[in-house]
Amino acid sequence: MTAPVDRTRRPFVIEEAIAILARTPSTLDALLRGLPVSWTLAHEGGETWSAFDVMGHFIHGEQVDWIPRAKIILTHGDARAFDRFDRLAQFTASAGRTLHNLLDDFAKLREANLRELGSLNLTNADLDRLGRHPELGVVTLRQLLATWVTHDLDHIMQISRVLARQYWDEVGPWRAYLRIISE
Amino acid sequence: MTAPVDRTRRPFVIEEAIAILARTPSTLDALLRGLPVSWTLAHEGGETWSAFDVMGHFIHGEQVDWIPRAKIILTHGDARAFDRFDRLAQFTASAGRTLHNLLDDFAKLREANLRELGSLNLTNADLDRLGRHPELGVVTLRQLLATWVTHDLDHIMQISRVLARQYWDEVGPWRAYLRIISE
Repeated sequence: MTAPVDRTRRPFVIEEAIAILARTPSTLDALLRGLPVSWTLAHEGGETWSAFDVMGHFIHGEQVDWIPRAKIILTHGDARAFDRFDRLAQFTASAGRTLHNLLDDFAKLREANLRELGSLNLTNADLDRLGRHPELGVVTLRQLLATWVTHDLDHIMQISRVLARQYWDEVGPWRAYLRIISE
Repeated sequence: MTAPVDRTRRPFVIEEAIAILARTPSTLDALLRGLPVSWTLAHEGGETWSAFDVMGHFIHGEQVDWIPRAKIILTHGDARAFDRFDRLAQFTASAGRTLHNLLDDFAKLREANLRELGSLNLTNADLDRLGRHPELGVVTLRQLLATWVTHDLDHIMQISRVLARQYWDEVGPWRAYLRIISE
C-alpha cells in the first residue's frame, strides 16, 4: 500500500470522483434506513436540517443542479448563468413522503445521473470549460464536478453530526472528548 | 410521520443505540470499500488520521474499550478504574494490513459485541451503575454506551471531512459554500 506524497490534496480525476459519487446512496442507506423516525427527524435546532430534510435536498440536487449545470456549461459555456438553486425546495417536495421513498429516489436519480455523466465522455479540455454561477461568477466544469463530490461528503458529515448531538446530555463527562459534540 | 417535541435531544434508549451501532460497519463499508488507496490513506496533514487509521482505531475500540469497560462496571462498579485506551494502537496493529481486512474485522467484532451487549439484558438500574474513568472520574454505564454511539458518528464525520478536504483546491470558488472545507 503506497501513500501519495501529499496526502492532504487530490487532483480531480473523474474516475475517482465517480467512485465517491456512486457510493453516497448506499452509504446513506446503510446509515439511515430503518432508524427510528425520532432520529431521522432530529435536527440541531431552529432552521437546521434533519437527515430527512437532507435527503430531500440531495434529490433536488440530482434533479436540477449537477448534471443540468454540466449541460449548461457544455452547451452555452459562460454565456448563460446557471439557474439558481433553491435550498429550501425539499420542504415542499418531501412533504408527506417517507425517508424510505427518499432513499430509493435518490439512489435511482444518482445512478441515472452517473450514467449520463459517463456518456458525456468528458475530456480534460471539457473539464476546463467555463460556466457562470449566478453568484460566484466564472467557474469550470471540473470545479462543478469536484463540488458535487464534496457536497455529498459535506452532507454525510452533517447527518452524522446531527445524530451524534442528540446525545449531548447522555454522554456526560465524555463530552470533553467528543469533537463532534463540543465543536 | 410524527416528530418528537424536542428534536435536538434524544434520551438514551438502548434499542435505539443498538440500531445506530449496528449500522456503522455497513455505513463505513459502503463509503470506503474499493475506493482508491490514495483516498483511503489521505489525511488532513501532520499527525491527523486517514480513513485507514480510523478503521484501525474502531477495531481497537471493539477489542478493549466499549464492552470490556461495560463489564468492568458490571463487575467492579467504580471501585476499579477502566484501563487506559491507547489512541495510537492502530499504527502498530494495522501495519501491513489492507482496508478490506480492517472493514471485515470491524464488522465481525461489532456484531459479536452487540450480541454480547444484548445478552447482558441491561435494566435501567444497570444503566445507572457507576464506573470510574481514569481521567474523567465517575461515569455511568448509560454514559459509556451513549458515548459508543456518538464516537461512531464522530469518526464517520471525520472520514467524510478528510475525504472532502482533498478537493480544497479543486472546488475553486465553491469553497465559500462548502462548510466541510472552510470550517
